[in-house]
Amino acid sequence: MSLPTDPVANLAALIRCPSVTPSEGGALVALEAMLKPLGAEVRRPVFSEPGEADVENLYARVGTKPPHLMFAGHTDVVPPGDEDAWTHPPFAAQIADGWMFGRGAVDMKGGIACFVAALARYAEQHGAPEGSVSFLITGDEEGPAVNGTEKLLAWAAAAGERWDAALVGEPTCIEALGDMIKTGRRGSLSGRITVTGRQGHVAYPHRADNPIPGLLALASALIAEPFDEGTASFQPSNLEITSIDVGNPAVNVIPGRASAAFNIRFNDRWNAETLKAEIARRLDRAADEARRRFGRAAPLAYELEWRERPSPVFLTRDEKLISALSASIEEVTGRKPELSTSGGTSDARFIKNYCPVVEFGLVGQTMHMVDERVALGDLETLTRIYLRFLEDWF
Amino acid sequence: MSLPTDPVANLAALIRCPSVTPSEGGALVALEAMLKPLGAEVRRPVFSEPGEADVENLYARVGTKPPHLMFAGHTDVVPPGDEDAWTHPPFAAQIADGWMFGRGAVDMKGGIACFVAALARYAEQHGAPEGSVSFLITGDEEGPAVNGTEKLLAWAAAAGERWDAALVGEPTCIEALGDMIKTGRRGSLSGRITVTGRQGHVAYPHRADNPIPGLLALASALIAEPFDEGTASFQPSNLEITSIDVGNPAVNVIPGRASAAFNIRFNDRWNAETLKAEIARRLDRAADEARRRFGRAAPLAYELEWRERPSPVFLTRDEKLISALSASIEEVTGRKPELSTSGGTSDARFIKNYCPVVEFGLVGQTMHMVDERVALGDLETLTRIYLRFLEDWF
Ligand SMILES: [Zn+2]
Ligand SMILES: [Zn+2]
Repeated sequence: MSLPTDPVANLAALIRCPSVTPSEGGALVALEAMLKPLGAEVRRPVFSEPGEADVENLYARVGTKPPHLMFAGHTDVVPPGDEDAWTHPPFAAQIADGWMFGRGAVDMKGGIACFVAALARYAEQHGAPEGSVSFLITGDEEGPAVNGTEKLLAWAAAAGERWDAALVGEPTCIEALGDMIKTGRRGSLSGRITVTGRQGHVAYPHRADNPIPGLLALASALIAEPFDEGTASFQPSNLEITSIDVGNPAVNVIPGRASAAFNIRFNDRWNAETLKAEIARRLDRAADEARRRFGRAAPLAYELEWRERPSPVFLTRDEKLISALSASIEEVTGRKPELSTSGGTSDARFIKNYCPVVEFGLVGQTMHMVDERVALGDLETLTRIYLRFLEDWF
Repeated sequence: MSLPTDPVANLAALIRCPSVTPSEGGALVALEAMLKPLGAEVRRPVFSEPGEADVENLYARVGTKPPHLMFAGHTDVVPPGDEDAWTHPPFAAQIADGWMFGRGAVDMKGGIACFVAALARYAEQHGAPEGSVSFLITGDEEGPAVNGTEKLLAWAAAAGERWDAALVGEPTCIEALGDMIKTGRRGSLSGRITVTGRQGHVAYPHRADNPIPGLLALASALIAEPFDEGTASFQPSNLEITSIDVGNPAVNVIPGRASAAFNIRFNDRWNAETLKAEIARRLDRAADEARRRFGRAAPLAYELEWRERPSPVFLTRDEKLISALSASIEEVTGRKPELSTSGGTSDARFIKNYCPVVEFGLVGQTMHMVDERVALGDLETLTRIYLRFLEDWF
């Protein structure tokens, strides 16, 4: 059996499977076919949730001994949008001018294709690693993410799997391959403030109680001051008011209710509990000030609801993992990667509960866009980085 | 022919016509039947507007000579709502415990019934007045008011009608008959502010431009300071923010657009133009402050749209009209009426372009409510006040 050492061939096979989330689309079947020649034991658990589509996932392990390295990612992709707007069809894996076009090219079938190729080259050059490599691949990362990585980790752990470190192959690079590793993420917390007043006619404001001035005061208090100046490893925490909703179409009516939604991305200066307390403190102070400003008998009454399941902040502190990856990148590309904790949440937030995790993959510029594409040179370079990393880590 | 001297009988006949706006419901036919014995020349113009229901109106003149007094009002009523919730059916004019129940009892079939009775008593006691009395009665006051008083006035004026003074029979009294005359109204002006930013992901706020902080600053600036302290004849001007609309359901998305609607009721310290300038000044100053507070390169850009046709502020300065009415009220009830300019707009805003106008009618407490009703004693008292007023004015 020939080994899947060519990342371009691997990626073409994956792009040709239209695995638009939550559909498997043949992508996990194709991946399984690549992994079998490497001696992987492959499992394909399907997870369900009431009201959600069933989702196929894949867990494959090469080797049985420790140390145990996990490679994590997803084969599902976002919809292609208007297919006529693509220069090359989104599921054809056509090559033009040194680029391979296709949905998932960088997010993140490309990362999977390269890691498979790296492991195949390792096997060719060194034989089986002194330890194990597992693939933890979900089909539910771009969708609601309820039948994906979190359940797959719990399922594997329940079957006795233990990992020493994990590498997530999401696109992390900004401008050039090798410019950024993600070593953690800010946490995320969302809430909604509602002020209830009393509806009435604008000509008789003393008989009504407009909730909007109070809501303006509360929302303004949330963004009046920065939460912090950032920390050694993280950007400053940042709160965005994402919506304000009253929905009163009548120009002569004072509304009875107004609400505002917000999201905060927070660093390791906070956790969800201390942050909730700080936000409640800001709101309570503004509610009390509103008593004086609007001449109210009592502090402004408001309701504060938190959305369930905030994402925790995390920072990976595994020196061996980070330095092996950084050194491999620098050796292959000449670039010293920035260790970053910026950006949106990823499935690393689930993995960090089991083992240290870092993220490194392709340049993300075209992800989720029409004409998503990857430079063929980047596929080869990323494969060499992953190979160097395997050699370094084992 | 017997004259319609009994306001209770007149009102019962009107309530029994279910003239829910914009339906005539027989009410103008009934009114015409009352006016004919008084020697009135009655016209019934119907007005149309694309997209709106045709509306029947009535203009009736008793006498041909000057001076010319107009009595203005409407026979249309708001819907009765849940008829089962009424103690007595809304279109039955049933009497119980000294009250007549029915939709329109106070707003404002009662006022019309009393004025007709007063004019009939005047004719019985004094013969035809030395001058003319006209009824300008619309069927489109409670609805969109596009086929009502404004058109009826223009139509009559085009036919050569000129008036010296007008009395609107809307319910103006708060607690007891005679406690309030309306001698003007604040103006009304509505607008909407829109801030356009750039949509994006909450994890990458530097790539987006959240319009909400800017909108909070602009909306807060509108209500930060009073517009004035009131004037000799008017309450303070008052601005209410009536809605804020973003409509972004996604907790991890920064919206691209946010808007706020507002209405201001303004007194004779302002007109629509000076007020627009003041509001633009407040917004521009806040937009410039936002440049510094949010570290923007340029002042915050916003759009300000004004709703068409603001209602002008007006104050009636006809001493003869006001003193004749006040004296009549005090003579009949012993109460000295407050001259007020408070409350919502009324059709008087159209009439004031043709002649001085005041408003005086029943106690409005039950208007637009279930069990709308009028005390029989109030009907008799209001009829006497209107009669005394006619005697005084002519
Ligand atoms: Zn991805
Ligand atoms: Zn009315």
